[in-house]
Parts: sequence; structure tokens; C-alpha cells
Amino acid sequence: MTDTRIQIVSTIISAKWICPVRPQNTVLEDHSIIIDENRIIDVIETKKVASLYQTNQHFQLHHHIVTPGLINAHTHAAMNLFRGFADDQPLDTWLNDSIWPLEKKWVTPDFVHDGTLIACAEMLKSGITTFNEMYFYPEAASRAIKQSGMRANIGLFVMDYPSNYANDGEDYLMKGLEARDGWRDENLITSSLAPHAPYSVSDKTLNQVVTYANQLNLTIHMHVHETEHEINSSLKEYQLRPIERLNRLGILSPQFMAVHAVYLNDEDLNTLSKESASVIHCPTSNLKLGSGIAHIEALQKNHINVCIGTDGSASNNKQDVLHDMQLASLLAKGMTKNPAILDAKTSLEMVTINGAKALGLEDCIGSIEKGKLADLTVFNMDHISTLPMYDPMSHLVYAATREEVSHVWVNGLLQYEEGHLTSIDVQTCKDIALRWQLKLKQNV
Amino acid sequence: MTDTRIQIVSTIISAKWICPVRPQNTVLEDHSIIIDENRIIDVIETKKVASLYQTNQHFQLHHHIVTPGLINAHTHAAMNLFRGFADDQPLDTWLNDSIWPLEKKWVTPDFVHDGTLIACAEMLKSGITTFNEMYFYPEAASRAIKQSGMRANIGLFVMDYPSNYANDGEDYLMKGLEARDGWRDENLITSSLAPHAPYSVSDKTLNQVVTYANQLNLTIHMHVHETEHEINSSLKEYQLRPIERLNRLGILSPQFMAVHAVYLNDEDLNTLSKESASVIHCPTSNLKLGSGIAHIEALQKNHINVCIGTDGSASNNKQDVLHDMQLASLLAKGMTKNPAILDAKTSLEMVTINGAKALGLEDCIGSIEKGKLADLTVFNMDHISTLPMYDPMSHLVYAATREEVSHVWVNGLLQYEEGHLTSIDVQTCKDIALRWQLKLKQNV
Repeated sequence: MTDTRIQIVSTIISAKWICPVRPQNTVLEDHSIIIDENRIIDVIETKKVASLYQTNQHFQLHHHIVTPGLINAHTHAAMNLFRGFADDQPLDTWLNDSIWPLEKKWVTPDFVHDGTLIACAEMLKSGITTFNEMYFYPEAASRAIKQSGMRANIGLFVMDYPSNYANDGEDYLMKGLEARDGWRDENLITSSLAPHAPYSVSDKTLNQVVTYANQLNLTIHMHVHETEHEINSSLKEYQLRPIERLNRLGILSPQFMAVHAVYLNDEDLNTLSKESASVIHCPTSNLKLGSGIAHIEALQKNHINVCIGTDGSASNNKQDVLHDMQLASLLAKGMTKNPAILDAKTSLEMVTINGAKALGLEDCIGSIEKGKLADLTVFNMDHISTLPMYDPMSHLVYAATREEVSHVWVNGLLQYEEGHLTSIDVQTCKDIALRWQLKLKQNV
Repeated sequence: MTDTRIQIVSTIISAKWICPVRPQNTVLEDHSIIIDENRIIDVIETKKVASLYQTNQHFQLHHHIVTPGLINAHTHAAMNLFRGFADDQPLDTWLNDSIWPLEKKWVTPDFVHDGTLIACAEMLKSGITTFNEMYFYPEAASRAIKQSGMRANIGLFVMDYPSNYANDGEDYLMKGLEARDGWRDENLITSSLAPHAPYSVSDKTLNQVVTYANQLNLTIHMHVHETEHEINSSLKEYQLRPIERLNRLGILSPQFMAVHAVYLNDEDLNTLSKESASVIHCPTSNLKLGSGIAHIEALQKNHINVCIGTDGSASNNKQDVLHDMQLASLLAKGMTKNPAILDAKTSLEMVTINGAKALGLEDCIGSIEKGKLADLTVFNMDHISTLPMYDPMSHLVYAATREEVSHVWVNGLLQYEEGHLTSIDVQTCKDIALRWQLKLKQNV
């Protein structure tokens, strides 16, 4: 006779440790996550599972830590195809002589699809379940993302300079909005407006961005205050710092994501804080391009939501937000000479709940809570580099690498397990990468 | 009939790419490394191998980069047993309330042997073939190192404070020199004198260190200028900055390794340069403990030899010098706002030939050259995170992680291959780690 109180569910994950992120600073030991369809319906002590739930898919993870799926809050995924093509160059040479001519010559819908697919494979293997994307040909990116099974927020790229993709501000906007129609019914994809940067988008175009963002209830994703040069140019052209200019245009809001924000004075901090905008910190990219080091402690003091992005693989060169989180924590300690700052639990929040908040998805993802969507990342700690184990949160933030990622669920589906991707064929990705390698090498 | 011109050798490694480090900035494509016994006897085009050499052990590495074995120029290996025990604490709390009481309670010869063995396993898997060690009970460390098959320079630890291991400067020195007698016939182990730091070693003891170093022709390995506090204390006590004090004591020389060197003024730089001392940069540890960021460009401008150390796992928390090399390169770019500084080839030198030079071993290791010892690290680049491939040196320094390490040879012997260690049993290491975990947790 079946006990009718027992509920049949899709998946049960019983783990040694769970870091749910909410409630804050919690580590659950010997607990289980109960998933039905695409949702977490319960988080309970493992010893209570048998009397309440049954499943065909029970994962017993005896040496593992489960965290909310990691969120990469800024990237240009397709740029994986340019990784390592041009390093160790001053920023202007890098952009003017390498990246922009490369983009002009090679970036097509096929390029964006192929590069995005490869980046999705790398991100899943790195424990990332959601990413915030900004690049040309968003429709092509969306096809790769659908195939990958990942969750993504796709930026509708806008600037006033012509490219292969579009001619002017209006053309970018129209193409972006049209592309968005192609994924509006997709559960896993949301949209932002993505004006490139204050120096590449005019007031006229930014006004249109604000109008559409309000009308369609979209977030806005933009590079801001990446270099001192950008601020000085703006002062010269507009007699305003970029953030002040954006504020006057009414673009700042809780839906605004300021990528980089390396150089912020007290007024900038005050403005971002007052408008409840989020900052997306990309520490590797800022170091590698010689932009500088963002002051995270100042953002924290001003209660600004900070999350972490890898940036594209041409300036990182890894789609590995776990690594960028670790770097953010280390940099904050070194810059402030305070080893207690950006501690392990705060660092983990930056790549989970804070990312979710920036994307307007904090009710759905970013923590392991009853009712949230089942986006989960698992780390196997049964390794020589993570033993002995005294504090799971410490090992996660300071000792683990993406090598320890063992399982990744997105929206209740297991997309990565022990080296194997479910929805992406790695050999196909490698073949695609080699094809582009051959083409681009001929260009040199 | 055998062609008598063909030489039978121990091992042939035919690789897609070799980064030999010497000659500088070279990438050899489709070349082979010929090893006989423990030495590299030739480096030639792979197509020429068959007519010259034969072996039972021919490795065909079609997607791989071979580099000289990586050198970790500063660690306290046994501290792997303390990893993650105490993070996110101010430096004085960390030392006074965590590390020193822990060491007093737990550090014994068994602890040092066990911790060192685990660290060796992690280092080999991270592509490290040689490390520069400093901790209590060097005899116990040497037993683990012999077992591991790694090359190491063991510091004979000296300070003026009592510990479980020794009572005063003289006692440390005597115990260290006695321990050294136990490995003097070992090919793979060399020795340093390792006075802890200027603030923990008196002039009297440092004078003895200089005498023994000269008499026995030993290098000296010492923490120097790690924090501003250290410099201020020295000014108060000795009216001298530590480096000036060390210089007056005659301790600086090409055999001197200054670990950390975060705070150097022009006079310090001039002194280190004039004395041809080496600096061992530990970027992760300096950030994590809130010490600050060393100015590598200033060291370069002063032609000071810079190599890289992980430091112990209580302040890193990884024995992964590839990661610290990448971090060093990124930090230098970010601090100077010059993305061209510490480029890929220079970064690779820091963990190979520069480390060898600091250890006085540059004639034996640090590059892939005819006549050198066969210490080699191989990276498999057939991964989604390292394709496409335009520039092997770039991928090695900016995209690869220790996950890509596929083979490690030390002194001609294959010590690591595709997840498997030759001389260390990983399960034994895990069991040991869990035993110490249980003990130390009871302490909390």
C-alpha cells in the first residue's frame, strides 16, 4: 500500500552541504533540495525526505556543496572566437587596430551564433546558469542560448556608430526590438536595452532607449565609467560626468546596470545609490585592459547592489565568474588593506542573489528557496585541493576552481554532469572553433 | 639491420607546441624533446626524430603545450592542513588568535610530513615541479618530498621565538643543519637558510645565518617588507628600514630571496638591485591578508629578478602558481594602467627561469634546453575554454588553468599523467586530510 502522504517529484538532490544564500550566511548540512518540474518545492533535512517525497532521480552528493546557479552579469559571449587574438596591447591599439577591424571583418550572424554556443558550453562547465549578454546580432545569440539550455538576459545592442549589424541608433533599436519578438515566448530568455557606452550613444538615442525601456518594462545594460579617459571626454563634450549626464536623461533607475564603474567620485556614488542602480564589477577585464580597480568597498558603503561579470573572452580570457568573484574578494582586501572585507558569504552573494536582483529576477533565481526556479550549481569537494574541509563557504570562495563544478541544473534540467553537457555537443563546438581559427588565422 | 646512427633514449615527447623560455619569446611548433635518463639531450623538429632517436616511451601530444616545469618560489607546504580554517580576519587576529595558537597546538613532525605530502600532490597536479619551502621540522618535510618525486629547496627555518620545534636562534640553526645532513645526498633536494622575517630574527642570529650561508654556500630565503607595519616597527627599533638593516648585516647577495617585498622605496629598490637579490612575489597572499600590492614594474625597471610564490594554503588558498602568475600579470597591468606590461612571455619567465635563477639552479632547470634536467609541464589545449587557439603563450598565461595540466615530468620521471600521480597515492592523502580534519575540528 502506498503512503498517500508521499509526493512524487521530478528530482531530489541530497547534499552534504547547501549554501542557499537566503537566509544569509547559512550552510545547511545533510539537507535535500526537492525539485518538481522547474521549481524548488522544498529544502529539508535529508533524513526527513523518505517520509515525504519520492523520485526517479535522486542525486546523493556526499562530498558536495550546492549553491544557487552562478550568474555572470556581463559578457559578450560571441567574443570567445577572438580569445587570445590580441593581448598585451594598450587599450586604444587593442580596440582600433585589433578588435574593431576584426569585428568589421568577421562578425556575422553565424559568427555570433557559433561564438555564443562555445561560450555557453564554457559557462555551463564553469557553473554559470544565467548570463547577461551584450553583442551584435542578438537574434543569432538567442538561437545558441536556446540550444544550450541556459538562462540569459539578452541585451539589444545600441550605439550611434555603424557596424555590420546596423547603421545608426534607430536602426540598432529597431533590429533589437524585432529580434526580441523572436524570443518573447521563451521561458529562459529576458531582454535588456543595451546602449554600448556614454561615448558611443548620443542623447537622442538615449532618450529613445529610456522611452522604450519604460514602455516595455526592460532593464538597461550599459558600460559606464570604465576609464578616466571616458570621464574626461564627457566633461569636454558635455561638461558633465557620464553618470550625471545619464541621470539627467532619466536613464538611471533600479533597472539600470552600470558595467565597470571603475572611476566613481562621491557624487557618482550618491547618484547611483539614490537611483538604486546596480553595478557590474568586471575585475579581470579592468585589470587586463589597464583600466584600473573598482572600489567595491565604496559601493558597499553606499548600499549599491554589486554583482560580477566576466566581460568577453577577448579581455578576460575566461568565462569563469567563480574566478572573477574570487578576484573581486582578493582585490577588495588588498586595496583596503582589510582582510575582513568582501568575506566569503558576501562574495557568494555577488554571483547569485545580487546578480538576480540586477536582472530583475530576484523573485525567481539567485537563492535556494522554496518556490524559486531550480537553477543550481554543485561543487565536488572530494579533492586533494579542498581537503581538509573546515568551512564550506571558505573553500567555495577561496580554494575551489571551476574544476570542482560537478553538476549544473537550469530551470530544473540537469545541463552538466561530471564533464558532460546535456544540450551542447562539445565535439561540435570544437569543430566550429577550429573552423573559425582557420579563417581568422588567414587574416593575420 | 639496425641503423647505428639511431640512439636509444628514455623518453621522447613530441608536442604541437613547446615554449622553451630560452631562447626568449619562442614557440616551437611540431618539435620534440629528447630525454635520456634525467636530462634533455635534444630539442628538434618532430619530423627529424625517427632518423635520430628511438624509445619505448614516445608521447604524442597533438594538442598540447610543453613548458619548463613550473617553480613555486615560496610556500609553507604543510599549512595545507590549515587551509580554510581561518579566513576573512585582520592580520593580527589571524596570526595571534588563529595561526600561531593552531601551530602551537598541532604542528609536530607528523603534521609537517602529512601536510607537505598533500601539498606536493596538489602542486604536481598544478604543474609545479619545484618548490621553495619554509616551515618547521624540515626533516619531516623532506621525507614527504622524497616520496613525492618533486624537486624542492628546503629552508632551514630560523627565528628567535620558541616553538614546538626549537627554542632559540641557535637551536633552530643546529636542528636545521642536522636535518640537512639527512638529504645532502638527494639529487632533488637543495637547502636554504630561512630566517623567518626581520622582526622575528635578531642581529645576532642573522650574523650566524650569514656565516653559515657563506661557509656552506647556501641561499637565504626570508620574508621581507610584507607590511607597512613591519617597516615602521623596524624604524622604531633599529632606526633602519629592514632591507637597509639586512644590507648592513651583509645578508643581501645574489643568493638572497626577498619574499613579498610589497613596500619598497627607491633606496630599497636600489639596494636589492645592487646586491642582485631576487624578489618572490606572492600576489594572492598579499591581497588576501590585506598587505597590499607589490610594484612589479618598479622591480623590472631596476632589473631585479622577480619570481612567483603561492605562499602557504592558509593565506592563498591554493598551491597553484599558474594562477598566481596570471594574477601577477593582471595586477601589474591594472596598477600601472598599462596592458602591455608583464606580457605573456615575461609572465611565463617568472614561474620558470626566474625561479630557477633565484634558487641558484638556472644551469639545471627553468628552460627547455639541451643539457638541462627534464622538468617539464604539459598543458592539453584541446578544451572548449582554450579553442580557438591563435597564440599558445597567450592561452597559457591568460586562458589556461591547472585543469589543463595533463603531464608533469620531474628529473626525467613522469610524476603526473591525466589525473594520476605516480609516486603519491591520492586516496592515502585524502584519508590523512580527513584524519587531521577530525582532530582540528575538535579544537574549535
